[in-house]
Amino acid sequence: PTQFVLTLKCPDRLGVMARYSGCLHQHGAFITEVSHYGDPDTKAFFSRTEFDDRHMECTFEQFLTDFAELAHELDMEYQLRPVQQKPKLMLAVSRDDHCLNMLLTKWRSGALPVEIVGVLSNHDDLRPLVEWYGIPYHHLPISKETKPQQEEQILALLQQTQADYLILARYMQILSDSLCEKLEGRAINIHHSFLPSFKGAKPYHQAHKRGVKVIGATAHFVTADLDEGPIICQEVKSVDHRATVSRYVHIGHDIEAITLADAVRLVAEQRVVLNEGRTVIL
Amino acid sequence: PTQFVLTLKCPDRLGVMARYSGCLHQHGAFITEVSHYGDPDTKAFFSRTEFDDRHMECTFEQFLTDFAELAHELDMEYQLRPVQQKPKLMLAVSRDDHCLNMLLTKWRSGALPVEIVGVLSNHDDLRPLVEWYGIPYHHLPISKETKPQQEEQILALLQQTQADYLILARYMQILSDSLCEKLEGRAINIHHSFLPSFKGAKPYHQAHKRGVKVIGATAHFVTADLDEGPIICQEVKSVDHRATVSRYVHIGHDIEAITLADAVRLVAEQRVVLNEGRTVIL
Amino acid sequence: PTQFVLTLKCPDRLGVMARYSGCLHQHGAFITEVSHYGDPDTKAFFSRTEFDDRHMECTFEQFLTDFAELAHELDMEYQLRPVQQKPKLMLAVSRDDHCLNMLLTKWRSGALPVEIVGVLSNHDDLRPLVEWYGIPYHHLPISKETKPQQEEQILALLQQTQADYLILARYMQILSDSLCEKLEGRAINIHHSFLPSFKGAKPYHQAHKRGVKVIGATAHFVTADLDEGPIICQEVKSVDHRATVSRYVHIGHDIEAITLADAVRLVAEQRVVLNEGRTVIL
Amino acid sequence: PTQFVLTLKCPDRLGVMARYSGCLHQHGAFITEVSHYGDPDTKAFFSRTEFDDRHMECTFEQFLTDFAELAHELDMEYQLRPVQQKPKLMLAVSRDDHCLNMLLTKWRSGALPVEIVGVLSNHDDLRPLVEWYGIPYHHLPISKETKPQQEEQILALLQQTQADYLILARYMQILSDSLCEKLEGRAINIHHSFLPSFKGAKPYHQAHKRGVKVIGATAHFVTADLDEGPIICQEVKSVDHRATVSRYVHIGHDIEAITLADAVRLVAEQRVVLNEGRTVIL
Repeated sequence: PTQFVLTLKCPDRLGVMARYSGCLHQHGAFITEVSHYGDPDTKAFFSRTEFDDRHMECTFEQFLTDFAELAHELDMEYQLRPVQQKPKLMLAVSRDDHCLNMLLTKWRSGALPVEIVGVLSNHDDLRPLVEWYGIPYHHLPISKETKPQQEEQILALLQQTQADYLILARYMQILSDSLCEKLEGRAINIHHSFLPSFKGAKPYHQAHKRGVKVIGATAHFVTADLDEGPIICQEVKSVDHRATVSRYVHIGHDIEAITLADAVRLVAEQRVVLNEGRTVIL
Repeated sequence: PTQFVLTLKCPDRLGVMARYSGCLHQHGAFITEVSHYGDPDTKAFFSRTEFDDRHMECTFEQFLTDFAELAHELDMEYQLRPVQQKPKLMLAVSRDDHCLNMLLTKWRSGALPVEIVGVLSNHDDLRPLVEWYGIPYHHLPISKETKPQQEEQILALLQQTQADYLILARYMQILSDSLCEKLEGRAINIHHSFLPSFKGAKPYHQAHKRGVKVIGATAHFVTADLDEGPIICQEVKSVDHRATVSRYVHIGHDIEAITLADAVRLVAEQRVVLNEGRTVIL
Repeated sequence: PTQFVLTLKCPDRLGVMARYSGCLHQHGAFITEVSHYGDPDTKAFFSRTEFDDRHMECTFEQFLTDFAELAHELDMEYQLRPVQQKPKLMLAVSRDDHCLNMLLTKWRSGALPVEIVGVLSNHDDLRPLVEWYGIPYHHLPISKETKPQQEEQILALLQQTQADYLILARYMQILSDSLCEKLEGRAINIHHSFLPSFKGAKPYHQAHKRGVKVIGATAHFVTADLDEGPIICQEVKSVDHRATVSRYVHIGHDIEAITLADAVRLVAEQRVVLNEGRTVIL
Repeated sequence: PTQFVLTLKCPDRLGVMARYSGCLHQHGAFITEVSHYGDPDTKAFFSRTEFDDRHMECTFEQFLTDFAELAHELDMEYQLRPVQQKPKLMLAVSRDDHCLNMLLTKWRSGALPVEIVGVLSNHDDLRPLVEWYGIPYHHLPISKETKPQQEEQILALLQQTQADYLILARYMQILSDSLCEKLEGRAINIHHSFLPSFKGAKPYHQAHKRGVKVIGATAHFVTADLDEGPIICQEVKSVDHRATVSRYVHIGHDIEAITLADAVRLVAEQRVVLNEGRTVIL
């Protein structure tokens, strides 16, 4: 049987779940994993279902048509795709390879259900590593003057490769507001601090100076409001007074790599839904 | 409106969720929180729903009758009660008060939605503390010879007080197989190790000797097979070579108290369901 | 033999450690635990030693005199006392008892090597609990108008009871700058967030709104610069989108209680030394 | 100035620290980091010092001679080397690359102060990855019959390359008792469970079956007593009932990679000393 994943969001009204699960049931969807959440504050209902078609008697097209009708009626936003049709990622990097390496390793071992369609960078340093994995590398240099053109190139690249998501794996460039808007909900960044602590530059230096006893990393959706986008994952690790700034950085690299990889997996599995500045993880 | 909590388990068949949520919908149950899980290994379906009766048009008795019919049809085991009808706990302690104190403090502050109907102990040491909280204290001394009689007293006490659960908050006595069987699914123990490591006596001494770098505590259902009951919660904390056995014990006390309190909360909120030697937390 | 604890700080010069450990050696101090740290940034040397007098041949007074001379020569600040002469704490609370309960429980069980000389509060609610433990309770009401007088009462109380430290165990009042200065290095606060995130009021509400995936608590020395004092301990716990604000608060209470108790223990054991806005934990 | 690292262990006698730090002082060693530990159970004293020779007036040879004399007198075992003379590692792998990748990434970025002199494997799968990093790859196939010969090859390889340590980065072969003995204190393994839980094969399957709520990984020295060698690092991560065995494995891979890399760093920095079946981390 073919495995499908369906993620949806709609206003939380009486009987939404019954309507929606009834529709799946009537069409013979065999549910293998399910997760719901209703937010009492935002009055929104969120759901993610994995199912297969082993008992489906109608055609899948018929199912799609009927489901679309229900979705319309319930003001639903949804994503429905076969599990094996993996989301396409474009990665953006600068010179540090710890996040990139984690994503590539996990992707190659099968732990990350994605297709990596390319890596773009403002530097050429990581080309050999990327090409070793058989992935196209795009060197898109940037300067203050050429920033608008370079961002045009990024957009063109995303379009050509039909990338679903842009993953900023320590890209170190601030995207323009206009690009952020165009990529809303599709661009994910790893910030090297436990947000909202230590926004902005050199967060490990800031953290060291402040003498915190725990450091962390935050994977979040990119929004025009820098470092304020909805948080997907956060991980932390204890440090003590003996740790130098350089040790903070090394510890931080581990946390960043794991946090970003985890966020990418959750997004790739359609487990992350936006909920007014926050995320729901299903 | 009155708030209800419904927890159920049944064989995972096509459409179980649709049938069950359809029934709630038809009777006007307004769902405020919901969590499902289908275990692909044991082929069991688990669900927990909180709902209120603000839109219910039939009487609650009618709803109960109709739901019972569906439950029968679907081979369902379920628990359904108004949220304000809190589960009744009997606590069992010995001489250490760290777990007891945590439960009493949280109960008094309203963080633990339970009714504490009494505390029993083989010692009389903790009576003043318990009575200060206005809770009856039962001193049930035990010796090798009187163990069967003492366990009869425990059972009688549970019956008189209509206790739903017996919480072994560092009781330090091993219950007989027969008592374990009678209390299956109703007795919860805190074991002072990260099970299955360091079963049996003096686990912190064992852990110290082995030089582990992390210690933990485990809250689990009591079964005749000592320290093998289904695990509800586990918490851990890092230690290093400088920690003496006595420091392990002190750190451990914190973890035990929090882990047990968390397990009790989960059980009280009907979030824990047994699943063939494991638990599902909804 | 009598057990002593010596904690010191001095400029880090060549041979400081040799001079200092040589002095202990010559006087027959038998070292049972030792910890040093030299900060390459602040050029300060920190050390904590536990020793006993089993092999001491001179009188302890002679040792004190000789050590004072060396300390003077090396520009040392130090604290030296018999371990059994426990530091005296005054606790300050408002209405919440979770931090207070943790401190009292641990103190009574012997896990916290301190003497609790009293509890002060702007409310009278927690008097019964405190008096049950046999500890004097001081009700010092406060209003905008009487704040200066109330703070005078606090200072008088600290003097009368010869309290070494004032522990703000969820006191919920902001101390005046003048009181902060008078108590520099002697007052410890628990802040219910992972500082520097969510300073100020209602941090759990802020954290919930921001959708963070980890919350925490921070124990720190009180300074006039609110929530900016040197950090002693920080603990964190994961949360997810399902947690309501009230659940954040409950989880937070656990972390606060443990974090504050841990900070108090470290301070009581003379393990915490100030280092220009940061702390060294020995 | 040249930076040195000195790690030592000796019987804990009165004045050991004074003698040893006095010797460093007299020869003008400028100490930049220091850590001591005296174990009250095993009566052993452990110390690690980083120092440079900026104020050294004698030749380094003279210092070595004098220190050796003191070391002999105090029954000291010690390791003393310039920091830039990095320890040489031979890595052993099978087919999984997650641990290998972590070590190679960190090594290349400078986060791991080691020299990787080669990678050996019973399979040829990871050759391209290793050679991409410019490191020699040794394919040493093994069968039941050829195990003794293959282990001879390993020993020969360690000797030729002058490797200080053999790192079993998921090598998946059990070393013979004889090889374990020859490599005592020089071979480090990563075990994919939180030892002593789930020793032996398929630990993630065991953990899943037992329904634990936390899984972990353990880096330890290899001894003939399988999975019982002194523990260097342990890391853990929470899991819940929804995690399948395959998800346990993926989560586990992250923990394994980080735990092993951390253990290798600690050993490379001479921070790990054996202490009767346990380790001291300085």
